[in-house]
Amino acid sequence: MSSSVLPAVLAANAGYKQSFGTKGTLALPPARQFAVLTCMDARIDPAKALGFAEGDAHVIRNAGGRASDDALRSLVISHKLLGTKEWFVIHHTNCGMELFTDEIIRGLLAQSLDTASIDATGWHDHGKGPGSHHGEFIDWLTIKEQAQSVKTDVERIRNHPLVPRSIPIYGYVYDVATGGLVEIPDAHQVGRATR
Amino acid sequence: MSSSVLPAVLAANAGYKQSFGTKGTLALPPARQFAVLTCMDARIDPAKALGFAEGDAHVIRNAGGRASDDALRSLVISHKLLGTKEWFVIHHTNCGMELFTDEIIRGLLAQSLDTASIDATGWHDHGKGPGSHHGEFIDWLTIKEQAQSVKTDVERIRNHPLVPRSIPIYGYVYDVATGGLVEIPDAHQVGRATR
Repeated sequence: MSSSVLPAVLAANAGYKQSFGTKGTLALPPARQFAVLTCMDARIDPAKALGFAEGDAHVIRNAGGRASDDALRSLVISHKLLGTKEWFVIHHTNCGMELFTDEIIRGLLAQSLDTASIDATGWHDHGKGPGSHHGEFIDWLTIKEQAQSVKTDVERIRNHPLVPRSIPIYGYVYDVATGGLVEIPDAHQVGRATR
Repeated sequence: MSSSVLPAVLAANAGYKQSFGTKGTLALPPARQFAVLTCMDARIDPAKALGFAEGDAHVIRNAGGRASDDALRSLVISHKLLGTKEWFVIHHTNCGMELFTDEIIRGLLAQSLDTASIDATGWHDHGKGPGSHHGEFIDWLTIKEQAQSVKTDVERIRNHPLVPRSIPIYGYVYDVATGGLVEIPDAHQVGRATR
């Protein structure tokens, strides 16, 4: 690892610790009582894009920002034990999850575990094998169209037996070209609180 | 929702969009080629605490920062399709996941879906029912001790059949009282790259 990020990350953390101020006294439950489910995408900084600070809000992130079983586990803990009362589901433009299918990633993993590359003709694997067929046991939760995936995910959360009807669930697509949130009215409608 | 956060969040996002600058041209794959798996805890701002900017790194977050099946799905996509080469697993002090057990949250959810509260005598549910026994079908991935949970999770990732041995996996506990990262040597050792 000739170019490991580790020294730079540790140096940055030492600086953060130095200027931590009074943040060490923040309470465990989110002060602004909301939670955000969004994608792991490197271009999204939820705190900056939505204007919240340390102590304010729960942030749940995975590939796609999907309402997976694990995201639901986290959301239920967020409300039931830590008091959040509003939830955002935010997918985004130019998401990596739109660039492949279960079949494609399973095929690539079967060739090697190393990083593949994509060009106009599709994905190419240049890695050294062996690969693994274990990818067949994973639903990769790929996305065909963002407005639909946001609605699907808000709907899944809305209908989960452990999610109370009092929590509004807001559905947005984040535009990585502008930094702006675009409301998905269908998702908002499905996610509205009804008591 | 007399005190919804929605107007403030949308106003903050409008300001972010206004000052977005050249960030709209950032590439999809993380520029600094690393990924962070950490807790949804409101007090943790991974970008600030680890010193990275939009476009730099993938961030995966769930309740506890656990190496769940969904976190592994995300990590494999992060490396295989988007080129990350180093991964951090970061749990933290004063984690909500240490304050309950599967039995406790299942019992609380069976009483009501509303927020419960904790005091020196334990958890109390004051919500209006009905609750749901659906909590019995979820493994809540609670934490008994952070250094052990970090090691367990690094070990699970290290031994996953879709994770190549070339990726170093670093194990840390983030101290919410100081903002500092504390290395877990046992986890680092388990997570070291071996080719």
